[in-house]
Amino acid sequence: MATRVNPHPLSTRSGDWLASRFAEVRGLTGALAAPLSDADATAQSMTDASPAKWHLAHVTWFFETFVLRDHVEGYELFDADWPFLFNSYYEAEGERHARPRRGMITRPSLDEVLAYRRHVDTALAAALPGLGERARELTELGLHHEQQHQELLLMDIQHLFAENPLEPAMFDAASASPGEAPGAIQWIEGRVGETAIGSNGLRDGPENGGAFAFDCEGPVHKIYLNPHALADRLITNGEWIEFIEAGGYRSHENWLMEGWDWIQKNRIEAPLYWRKEPNGRWYRFGLAGKQPIDLSAPVCHISYYEADAYANWTGFRLPTEGEWENAARDLDPAGGNQLDGAGEVRPRPASASGDGLKQMFGDCWEWTASAYLPHPGFRTAEGAVGEYNGKFMVGQYVLKGACCATPRGHSRASYRNFFYPHMRWQFAGLRLARDL
Amino acid sequence: MATRVNPHPLSTRSGDWLASRFAEVRGLTGALAAPLSDADATAQSMTDASPAKWHLAHVTWFFETFVLRDHVEGYELFDADWPFLFNSYYEAEGERHARPRRGMITRPSLDEVLAYRRHVDTALAAALPGLGERARELTELGLHHEQQHQELLLMDIQHLFAENPLEPAMFDAASASPGEAPGAIQWIEGRVGETAIGSNGLRDGPENGGAFAFDCEGPVHKIYLNPHALADRLITNGEWIEFIEAGGYRSHENWLMEGWDWIQKNRIEAPLYWRKEPNGRWYRFGLAGKQPIDLSAPVCHISYYEADAYANWTGFRLPTEGEWENAARDLDPAGGNQLDGAGEVRPRPASASGDGLKQMFGDCWEWTASAYLPHPGFRTAEGAVGEYNGKFMVGQYVLKGACCATPRGHSRASYRNFFYPHMRWQFAGLRLARDL
Amino acid sequence: MATRVNPHPLSTRSGDWLASRFAEVRGLTGALAAPLSDADATAQSMTDASPAKWHLAHVTWFFETFVLRDHVEGYELFDADWPFLFNSYYEAEGERHARPRRGMITRPSLDEVLAYRRHVDTALAAALPGLGERARELTELGLHHEQQHQELLLMDIQHLFAENPLEPAMFDAASASPGEAPGAIQWIEGRVGETAIGSNGLRDGPENGGAFAFDCEGPVHKIYLNPHALADRLITNGEWIEFIEAGGYRSHENWLMEGWDWIQKNRIEAPLYWRKEPNGRWYRFGLAGKQPIDLSAPVCHISYYEADAYANWTGFRLPTEGEWENAARDLDPAGGNQLDGAGEVRPRPASASGDGLKQMFGDCWEWTASAYLPHPGFRTAEGAVGEYNGKFMVGQYVLKGACCATPRGHSRASYRNFFYPHMRWQFAGLRLARDL
Amino acid sequence: MATRVNPHPLSTRSGDWLASRFAEVRGLTGALAAPLSDADATAQSMTDASPAKWHLAHVTWFFETFVLRDHVEGYELFDADWPFLFNSYYEAEGERHARPRRGMITRPSLDEVLAYRRHVDTALAAALPGLGERARELTELGLHHEQQHQELLLMDIQHLFAENPLEPAMFDAASASPGEAPGAIQWIEGRVGETAIGSNGLRDGPENGGAFAFDCEGPVHKIYLNPHALADRLITNGEWIEFIEAGGYRSHENWLMEGWDWIQKNRIEAPLYWRKEPNGRWYRFGLAGKQPIDLSAPVCHISYYEADAYANWTGFRLPTEGEWENAARDLDPAGGNQLDGAGEVRPRPASASGDGLKQMFGDCWEWTASAYLPHPGFRTAEGAVGEYNGKFMVGQYVLKGACCATPRGHSRASYRNFFYPHMRWQFAGLRLARDL
Repeated sequence: MATRVNPHPLSTRSGDWLASRFAEVRGLTGALAAPLSDADATAQSMTDASPAKWHLAHVTWFFETFVLRDHVEGYELFDADWPFLFNSYYEAEGERHARPRRGMITRPSLDEVLAYRRHVDTALAAALPGLGERARELTELGLHHEQQHQELLLMDIQHLFAENPLEPAMFDAASASPGEAPGAIQWIEGRVGETAIGSNGLRDGPENGGAFAFDCEGPVHKIYLNPHALADRLITNGEWIEFIEAGGYRSHENWLMEGWDWIQKNRIEAPLYWRKEPNGRWYRFGLAGKQPIDLSAPVCHISYYEADAYANWTGFRLPTEGEWENAARDLDPAGGNQLDGAGEVRPRPASASGDGLKQMFGDCWEWTASAYLPHPGFRTAEGAVGEYNGKFMVGQYVLKGACCATPRGHSRASYRNFFYPHMRWQFAGLRLARDL
Repeated sequence: MATRVNPHPLSTRSGDWLASRFAEVRGLTGALAAPLSDADATAQSMTDASPAKWHLAHVTWFFETFVLRDHVEGYELFDADWPFLFNSYYEAEGERHARPRRGMITRPSLDEVLAYRRHVDTALAAALPGLGERARELTELGLHHEQQHQELLLMDIQHLFAENPLEPAMFDAASASPGEAPGAIQWIEGRVGETAIGSNGLRDGPENGGAFAFDCEGPVHKIYLNPHALADRLITNGEWIEFIEAGGYRSHENWLMEGWDWIQKNRIEAPLYWRKEPNGRWYRFGLAGKQPIDLSAPVCHISYYEADAYANWTGFRLPTEGEWENAARDLDPAGGNQLDGAGEVRPRPASASGDGLKQMFGDCWEWTASAYLPHPGFRTAEGAVGEYNGKFMVGQYVLKGACCATPRGHSRASYRNFFYPHMRWQFAGLRLARDL
Repeated sequence: MATRVNPHPLSTRSGDWLASRFAEVRGLTGALAAPLSDADATAQSMTDASPAKWHLAHVTWFFETFVLRDHVEGYELFDADWPFLFNSYYEAEGERHARPRRGMITRPSLDEVLAYRRHVDTALAAALPGLGERARELTELGLHHEQQHQELLLMDIQHLFAENPLEPAMFDAASASPGEAPGAIQWIEGRVGETAIGSNGLRDGPENGGAFAFDCEGPVHKIYLNPHALADRLITNGEWIEFIEAGGYRSHENWLMEGWDWIQKNRIEAPLYWRKEPNGRWYRFGLAGKQPIDLSAPVCHISYYEADAYANWTGFRLPTEGEWENAARDLDPAGGNQLDGAGEVRPRPASASGDGLKQMFGDCWEWTASAYLPHPGFRTAEGAVGEYNGKFMVGQYVLKGACCATPRGHSRASYRNFFYPHMRWQFAGLRLARDL
Repeated sequence: MATRVNPHPLSTRSGDWLASRFAEVRGLTGALAAPLSDADATAQSMTDASPAKWHLAHVTWFFETFVLRDHVEGYELFDADWPFLFNSYYEAEGERHARPRRGMITRPSLDEVLAYRRHVDTALAAALPGLGERARELTELGLHHEQQHQELLLMDIQHLFAENPLEPAMFDAASASPGEAPGAIQWIEGRVGETAIGSNGLRDGPENGGAFAFDCEGPVHKIYLNPHALADRLITNGEWIEFIEAGGYRSHENWLMEGWDWIQKNRIEAPLYWRKEPNGRWYRFGLAGKQPIDLSAPVCHISYYEADAYANWTGFRLPTEGEWENAARDLDPAGGNQLDGAGEVRPRPASASGDGLKQMFGDCWEWTASAYLPHPGFRTAEGAVGEYNGKFMVGQYVLKGACCATPRGHSRASYRNFFYPHMRWQFAGLRLARDL
């Protein structure tokens, strides 16, 4: 997942709202990083991941560059050498440190990066009352951007700690009795025929329900839905173990050819972070270290290949983005099991009772059968902040919803998360769909 | 491009028709291979390509296995060791020789493979009058399958010969004066709103216009078209040279991030097979060896990345599969510059006069902006012959139309060719589209 | 093994001798290639190997370039484009076709290359009577060069044919009953103290026993031999099977760390070309196709890592180059099981009776414990023909003796064959040594 | 360089001597690590390097395992999970954490590792008076082992910090005016004929001059030296710049084929750590950060390939191990520019006056022309501590002497350092030799 920015969010947020929101979001980032040592915050476990320290500095660089540097007269950079280190992929902002070598940057230290954060926090708080509309827009954009990195930070630390044979925990395990087993899947029929999906973001104006959205979510456009139904809940760990025990990972019939090659080459036989005790029993590694597998909770950390193989094995399929988004339109995107503060996060079982779609927001991002491609009418924006969702629109798949590590308030029905089909360090699960 | 087969085409072709068609298709394959030496027919230039000898034997293996072995009592295999060599990717048919090492099979010789072809031709011709419906269906399927390999054979030989510094020619150059320059692009508006695309193939029955289609073309389903227009013709070599000279390959703004990485890593600065004279002038390598570039002819042998970058550079975009297919519905898929016999093939200029869409079938396959994903309602078929377009449905893009190397009669509006975005040894070009 | 040339052999051979020898050597090359089809002669199974056609043309290019072009007035190249294809690694001779892609050169055909050979044969035969001393020297050098390629051609074809699941044979199997089992190893003590090894080649003049040698064999220099003994014969296949069955490939204690990594990574558990029947029984693939393993014959096609591991397992070691060369000084290098004509070649059992060192020349090249480094006083020569053994003197090991595929008359005690420690497609075996 | 241990040093050191030496060596390690942050000590810049934290813990693990665990009754491991992390390559000691992933171990922290060191220091100091002979031997061995890791720690930190665009310094630069330019090379003739090299270590007993040596240095054995001379001093940076400016890196004639490929592929055009100012001027990165190049100081951080190419360019060659060791026999191995305490280290100019060999110990390790192979009579030792120099004896070259980062007192004439020919993060330079 590359994080995404939209150059034209046209925020009309008040300075007060922004100041309060800014303090809140920045504060959560700090709290998430609090358990980390200097070394924890420096290491990078793979090219797709970044060090926590880098996340902390990069989101700060965003505010420093696009708000303070560009819109606050007389602002001086905290350190003129740091933008080279903390630019992510904005070609228009010049050369930058090679992504795969981010873990080599042992200096500045975590403490120095935290000082950088405080410096920019103070400067921005001081500047906010006097910022013009464009700078306020960029500030709001920066907050959404930082929320994305909050989730990435948790993903990346989990991936890093998983490399350590001592299986260290970032957080204490939240106390929880195993969930109640959810019932059999209920099929919820979706709309048939023309419908509209996507979001115009703030371009619609608040009077028309305009709210922040990234550029790739727009514009609103029509699609046609063929007869279909969605499962009412996510697939559980218990169901996944049935798949494993039925030889699901060993039968080529279930798999895309690419997926089959991928599991052979990487000797995949279970979701990421699943491990076996010497007695052959599965457990999982998570942000609270070694944990038992809750059979009723949704399966998580699976690739698109695995999600697709599971669906093929059942004879059903994954939902399309349009089907999912249409079904989610009237649900509360801020409901469900999402991130509220520092502490262990993990997918939890769906409630065993109640009708209708469950777990649409929270627990796990949901793989769809849709490639991450431009919506009809999409145009990339100009300038560095518009560099740009469009540039990632090849080879990836859309995931919808939100997960237990997504900051509450960040997602919405039109939100488009995206990953390559082999990736699975994000909190991704699956919901089945079927043709009618 | 993996070749595709459909287990249930439900052919109702008469035996006579099949016999005649069989002789025709098999004859063309033989004619295409006639200029090749034993060595030419054995070498494999890359994993994505296969030796000509392998193509010749594999399509024969298809008839031998699925028609003669399975439906003709008493048929004995030409050589019981050969199926291991000439199965392509049918897991259900057992182990097979590793694809990247096909070029190591110097024996059997080309002559022996041609003898194999004659043996199967004779056996099938003898068997045809007595074949049941299912076997006749499989025979028709085998003919479509062989046509795909005719095109692949030409692609693969061109790729192989391009490795040879002596720049050998497979065919003499067809005499041709450079084409007349086509006029400025005309924009042809497409339908707006609900429409249907796809094909049910023979399942619709001849009384409903049913005709052969591969499984991935179906089923017929509805989509929604937003307002758009298509360019009336393909982009030319002359226009491509303008793109090169404007620094198109050196400006990251035009490129998908993956594409930018790809051109950096592979030092791409022109279409495949374009080369420079010592004096800096471009020429191209083709099936007739070294040839001048016809500025009026369509640009060919470009990747999806390049097609997309060009479109971005112009401010337009590529068509979606739905837009293209809808526009092509009433055009003659057997018109245009396609393969009629052995000899040089190459894209040719659009006629400079006339209204409406040109070059929709023939000259070059056209990259679309659509990922190769299952149509709504698509189900993979069972058994070995149904192994299966579905298994390739990840990471690839749809190309529509036909090219100068496509056997005339093989393609249709619903046809879905597909390649990975970096591939360009197929005859692929581009047509622009725009939102309205 | 890169082939080696010496710029200053100072041959004083008569024209008649050269003419006769030239006909003989060139004739053997032709006979070796006779069983090959155009496709057989074109394919390249790995970067370290070359196509037979390339060998046939490259040795011809050597005569054409360094004798005919440089020393025969008015000689015109057979084809001015071919040197680019058939130069091996002589940087001074300009750019050349990339080695790993030699198998892509399907044209010129085998027949055309054979015509090239005839053309150069005729031109050289005509020119020989009039050639000066330097050109005669280069002709003699070219003959030794061609002999090296005779052996390489056999090695490379065996490697290529081993890729073919049909296990084709190049030659009929020579009829042979399994050999008599040799007795227990006898230890033959070597000289202790100062001694001289190496050869000055023709620089010593015939009156001082000067005979052709490659540059890397010189100069003659002193070494010191510590007390030691050599085994009287090579290790046999039967002894090797004991090693396998004792878990020799599964115990890290036997192995160099590099070797241990190499067998893990490549899943090595037996010599190259050894394969198992479904019943678990070993057989070997050779130039006569599938063959039983003769327990009394020397083990062959093993890497340095394997030879060293075997020696460690026994508690003994490999000989040094100096120990081996000193011991071989008075033996007949033209004796033993070497190549005399076209036909199957394979290592054969040592005679079960008789004293002294056996199999020193012939059967298998013998891995030594000595790195391939310059002898004291070695200087690389100037010019293209002197490009040069020196340039390969890193990372490789010396092998001494000769093998069943070495043209009789080619080797001598001072001969230095060399390969990287992981290579084993050459006919290489081992003889044990011990400290006293 | 893998570090080396000898299982049978037969130390007869007194307990007092050992206690004092132990405090001294352990103290220096601590002082070297003092400037490092937790993050600095955790990161690993390449597979060949290890994190500083790992070095600190590994050398401690050595004492804990082979002395305390094996020889001190009732000793309990500091942490039973740590041996898995801090074993290096002793297969006999069981599974261990994968070397390339050492940088992922962010926990235990640097502070925890330092506590581990204190724990073992205390336990060993308490145990020393009561240790038997074997345990005292292992303690002495452990000290030599720790000295090797002191040098590795400095090498590895320099390599890591070199990745950081901010070019951080580990130490302040030692004040120094550029050295006086040394005069022209003087050639010092070496002995001719039989001589002995190597060391039997403590096996000779103190009465025969026995002193500690690693197993690979023995046994003492005879060699023969051909007439030769050594340069009196190392090649300087100034001389290296002449090589660069003469196109030394661009002329294939100077290079081994492997070396030529290596510089092409890695775009090598100067020693490691040399960088260019925007004005084109070279500077170097070192333990004191960015530093000017002292033209009179020895060139450092060059590979074998570069050393060999330079020697070829001059028409001379590198010394053999025997030539070097014989010449060094009577020199003081504890003289010269070696490591005495924490602080910047760097090669310094040879004194401009004085006769005889200079810089034989200190400044830079010296590449020899000798492969790292067993001395005649060498036998690997049994058991885990004897795992073992022998296992690295393939593909590497011997370096002799000592460098500015070698703890004074660690090296001797018979010492055999070894690296692969492409490695250059060690402090390696070159001295020329010539045949007479």
